[in-house]
Amino acid sequence: MAIKNLINGKSVDELTAHDRGLHYGDGLFETITVENKQLLCWDEHLKRLERGCVKLNIAVPDKNILKNEVSALIKTKSRGVIKIIISRGGGGRGYKISENIEPTRIISLYPWSSQYDKNSSSGVKTRICSYRYAKNPFLAGIKHLNRLEQILARSEWNDDSIAEGIVMDSENYIIEGTMSNIFCIIGKTLYTPDLSACGIEGIVREKIIELASNLKFKDDLTSLNVEIKKIPLEFLMNAEEIFMCNSIIGVWPVNIIDKTKFSNHKKTQNIIKTLQEYNSIPKLCKNTN
Amino acid sequence: MAIKNLINGKSVDELTAHDRGLHYGDGLFETITVENKQLLCWDEHLKRLERGCVKLNIAVPDKNILKNEVSALIKTKSRGVIKIIISRGGGGRGYKISENIEPTRIISLYPWSSQYDKNSSSGVKTRICSYRYAKNPFLAGIKHLNRLEQILARSEWNDDSIAEGIVMDSENYIIEGTMSNIFCIIGKTLYTPDLSACGIEGIVREKIIELASNLKFKDDLTSLNVEIKKIPLEFLMNAEEIFMCNSIIGVWPVNIIDKTKFSNHKKTQNIIKTLQEYNSIPKLCKNTN
Repeated sequence: MAIKNLINGKSVDELTAHDRGLHYGDGLFETITVENKQLLCWDEHLKRLERGCVKLNIAVPDKNILKNEVSALIKTKSRGVIKIIISRGGGGRGYKISENIEPTRIISLYPWSSQYDKNSSSGVKTRICSYRYAKNPFLAGIKHLNRLEQILARSEWNDDSIAEGIVMDSENYIIEGTMSNIFCIIGKTLYTPDLSACGIEGIVREKIIELASNLKFKDDLTSLNVEIKKIPLEFLMNAEEIFMCNSIIGVWPVNIIDKTKFSNHKKTQNIIKTLQEYNSIPKLCKNTN
Repeated sequence: MAIKNLINGKSVDELTAHDRGLHYGDGLFETITVENKQLLCWDEHLKRLERGCVKLNIAVPDKNILKNEVSALIKTKSRGVIKIIISRGGGGRGYKISENIEPTRIISLYPWSSQYDKNSSSGVKTRICSYRYAKNPFLAGIKHLNRLEQILARSEWNDDSIAEGIVMDSENYIIEGTMSNIFCIIGKTLYTPDLSACGIEGIVREKIIELASNLKFKDDLTSLNVEIKKIPLEFLMNAEEIFMCNSIIGVWPVNIIDKTKFSNHKKTQNIIKTLQEYNSIPKLCKNTN
């Protein structure tokens, strides 16, 4: 499956070298699962994109234009990944934002990886990164284009058997993965890190918090509650179950962190089932067209 | 004067929408003054660019290729600004760096602004920004493409009479401007903020430290020494002279910070003269061709 792009509605692969997205990372992005030609959690992604635009004072893109352009890209694909970049637009040199600048809208379709499904079924090996995320309360939560920190954390390992790295902040509290949020379960509580100073508020993370808060989990998960708190490494390492999540990978049960094994994934697998029932994460399938 | 670009040596204005510079701010940049068809502090800019490449593990660009491409752009211009962007290159989706990725080299020529010269002569009005730079020791010093923090600080004012904003870190220590470094003078000491946790190590800042350390200042500046330290706002506000500096603006004496006036610029003007003698900052001239 070839990558396809629409840049400001045009089917082209290139954009001006003077875009502020390139010069300063001045913009936002979303990555969304395409399943059976549908977009998972479209409204939630749009809401986060809007929240980011408001925060950075970038004009919020027209919902209908975005939806139409995304639909045009995915109409022939049953599975894939849509990435939307909204940058502040092309501008002169300097940090000052020109008046009447028009945001750039880049929508791209990427192929699906069957590895995501495999990892959801069998669980993943992870590691603790030595890189520490900087605390930046203003930029925390939104999915902006300044992602050198994630790249630095991800560049710490080359071993393909390690699926994700877990990153702490400068005070050694667990924040998230390099590309995913993290949860751990102890007793009847789902714990996930406080992201008020760094990290990205993931759509799946929000869904899990929402489902637990609204008592939407069933069977052995019925009484599961969520606590958002500062999580030291030791707390995480003593959890009963651990999983990582994002909109593309869905939920990956954590089998190993460095040399410590976690063999219990019972509640995690039930959380996966519930999220799939609510169309919040991809369903496992063999067809990766 | 129209903007001209060379992207990987080709005279084009566009680049692939899949460049990691755009997606993640995964790269570095330099802005250099062109004066009489010469590049000021070329070696120093190249050295900082190399330092950044090594830190981010991006292949260091070939010096001769860079120099040849820059020379081709500036050969007909007596004054201007050269901007070099080195991004990690075009790549697939995800933070992981593909093997054998080739960096993208974007060199652009921008027009000179006569405002820079004017501000050097008459001094500038500045303000204290409310935005606080995040502490990130690994990324501090280098001129990487993740510049949302500078944009946020710069977006705090629209009053064109204010030339620069002064930004503190999360602990309320002065770091630098939105686009420049800062110095203050008390007695025989030049103070400039410690940039070990945030900020950019400016070329002019380095030059001033070098000149003072090597006793290259003359006359009433002979005994001037430099101290790099944590500078609280109160310390700055009680300084005798204050100035901001970068490779393009040169040195701007600070006349006003918010409502506090600073009328003494005697040593600052002598520092400007010395830096101009050493070809470290632009000379004032009326010809802005």
